[in-house]
Amino acid sequence: MNDFSHVTTPAFLVDRSIVEQNCARMCAKALSSGVAFRPHVKTHKTIEIGRMQHGRAIGPITVSTMAEAGFFANAGFRDITYAMPIAPEKLARAAALAARIERLNILLDSHAALRAVEEFHAAHGTVFDVFLKVDCGYHRAGVDPNDPDSARLAIALSRSPAVHFQGLLTHAGHSYNVHDVDEIRRIAAEETASLTRFRALVGLDELTRSIGSTPTTCIVDSFTDTDEVRPGNYVFFDAFQATLGSCSMKDVAVSVLSTVVGSYPERGEAIIDAGALAMSKDVSPEHLDPKFGFGIVCDAALNPLPARLVSLSQEHGKLKMAAPPPVGTLVRIIPNHSCLTAAMYDRYHVIEGDSIVDEWQPVRGW
Amino acid sequence: MNDFSHVTTPAFLVDRSIVEQNCARMCAKALSSGVAFRPHVKTHKTIEIGRMQHGRAIGPITVSTMAEAGFFANAGFRDITYAMPIAPEKLARAAALAARIERLNILLDSHAALRAVEEFHAAHGTVFDVFLKVDCGYHRAGVDPNDPDSARLAIALSRSPAVHFQGLLTHAGHSYNVHDVDEIRRIAAEETASLTRFRALVGLDELTRSIGSTPTTCIVDSFTDTDEVRPGNYVFFDAFQATLGSCSMKDVAVSVLSTVVGSYPERGEAIIDAGALAMSKDVSPEHLDPKFGFGIVCDAALNPLPARLVSLSQEHGKLKMAAPPPVGTLVRIIPNHSCLTAAMYDRYHVIEGDSIVDEWQPVRGW
Repeated sequence: MNDFSHVTTPAFLVDRSIVEQNCARMCAKALSSGVAFRPHVKTHKTIEIGRMQHGRAIGPITVSTMAEAGFFANAGFRDITYAMPIAPEKLARAAALAARIERLNILLDSHAALRAVEEFHAAHGTVFDVFLKVDCGYHRAGVDPNDPDSARLAIALSRSPAVHFQGLLTHAGHSYNVHDVDEIRRIAAEETASLTRFRALVGLDELTRSIGSTPTTCIVDSFTDTDEVRPGNYVFFDAFQATLGSCSMKDVAVSVLSTVVGSYPERGEAIIDAGALAMSKDVSPEHLDPKFGFGIVCDAALNPLPARLVSLSQEHGKLKMAAPPPVGTLVRIIPNHSCLTAAMYDRYHVIEGDSIVDEWQPVRGW
Repeated sequence: MNDFSHVTTPAFLVDRSIVEQNCARMCAKALSSGVAFRPHVKTHKTIEIGRMQHGRAIGPITVSTMAEAGFFANAGFRDITYAMPIAPEKLARAAALAARIERLNILLDSHAALRAVEEFHAAHGTVFDVFLKVDCGYHRAGVDPNDPDSARLAIALSRSPAVHFQGLLTHAGHSYNVHDVDEIRRIAAEETASLTRFRALVGLDELTRSIGSTPTTCIVDSFTDTDEVRPGNYVFFDAFQATLGSCSMKDVAVSVLSTVVGSYPERGEAIIDAGALAMSKDVSPEHLDPKFGFGIVCDAALNPLPARLVSLSQEHGKLKMAAPPPVGTLVRIIPNHSCLTAAMYDRYHVIEGDSIVDEWQPVRGW
């Protein structure tokens, strides 16, 4: 018997023991590989898990928003990489934060952004710690390492009085678009090799090579040919990571607790009170299974049910299943993409097995 | 020149004048039609717009969560319909709220939910104001009006000592799945007719017939054959409603302000700082235009740009465009589904034309 019946649904449940295991495993892999570990906190956005990622200590972290940077700085985190190409309008805020911690690394990938940094330096004197974003094949942000202009930008960074040029940073986000783990291994090899080649090309051996997506960091046995790793999703994992092969289902630490509010056996459907605002509308494993739906439907003890979460409106989720459970039944949905689902909640219900043991509050916004 | 350059992006901009026009138009239509007006507040979740919906007054409203119900009750709203089939675990909270306002209508569509209401009544004495949810063709929640068991449930509600049976409520959510406005008109006619037929069938003429989706309430010139209307999205509208034909583009009151943080002319792409957490991943007009993308891309003055927002990760949005603007450029994205996008923000930036004039805070959670 669990004590979930007193929880207002929908609720985001975080299994603390599983998070701790996930954190310990990745941290140990980084330590034994002899690389720096700068885990991403964007998936959970909580101080509690930020500390777990470093074995209950304070260590270097990666953030996706300036709001996260400030929140973690206030909690004592002193070495932070803001891993989005910086918008010029955010330089003042970055400079103010950098002045009160040991190091705030910012990211850029263009001469235009470097010019903005240099203009800010000319006006205010700030010298920014900077990583150059390199595109290792994902084609989202980052310079093309094969374009001669990218080497020119690296040289300009190394010579700019406005910059402490710290390193090269890449994110192999295309490791999410694969069909098998061999593809992830190939992408992992290219993720590291692209930075090593580019660093050799520009002849700046002191630059840190920083890599890290959860699929590529989970699939390798140890980290080689790199200096720093930055995975994030691995603290929770999710249905997508389990489907990709980054983890097994028992490694997934989170689920959405929801109540059946409508049961329609005649049409083989049920309605639950977890809709788009409780789940997010991410359909990520769709390229592997077009009928995957919006998460894995389980009973309250997390046993998978023969059901699919086929649609989401704002507060309603529709289950297709031959034998829909009666109104009032609790179900748990393993989300497709835990980063987006977690961000829908102002608080997490922390569980140990069937018991609620704590409540954690993530930072929100920008 | 606008003053958006000092806003931290991404930000949710709400044009107050357009919201006021949208509110006034729908309120006037309800008044001139002689029907009760109980607008939904789930799209905006703010007290400010809740008052605008009734011409700056307090009036009956519809909510999608108990958190909204409590928030609006605290602000003086006294007559509230909680328009989700109620979960038995929420009856205690509903009873407590009902005791401190004039009326809280709850919704159910099953004998099982009625039994839960009757058990609660037996234990605590509460008599609930209840609407029966009827399915007018959307096939999400609601009883089938052609199933004899639905009439039995209506009769049971009318006789239950635990219930003040207030009326029949339906939502024509399938009006979003259409291809032209003629289809919306047919659905609007069936939305009202289904409740009228069912009410005649059960012979309970005193029941309120409550209807309302934004497409069906926008498309009709006046409300006939019904007693109460409950649209919600019309306060903001969005790219989906404009594509459906519920409104014109100039009626859309909201946009996401975002900054170009990466510009890649060689591959015809730009990266903006509005990702999945700033936009939501709703692709709603996709059935009308498979290449619609995640919103309509405009410049800072809201002129549409020849660009598509083709993908979203947590904090990055990718634009495809022949001539991507330089890093630092402000863009505005008209969201596909304003209800889901608005819910991503803890505060809205309220604008009049190019000026920021206020800030509103929506309620969150459940």
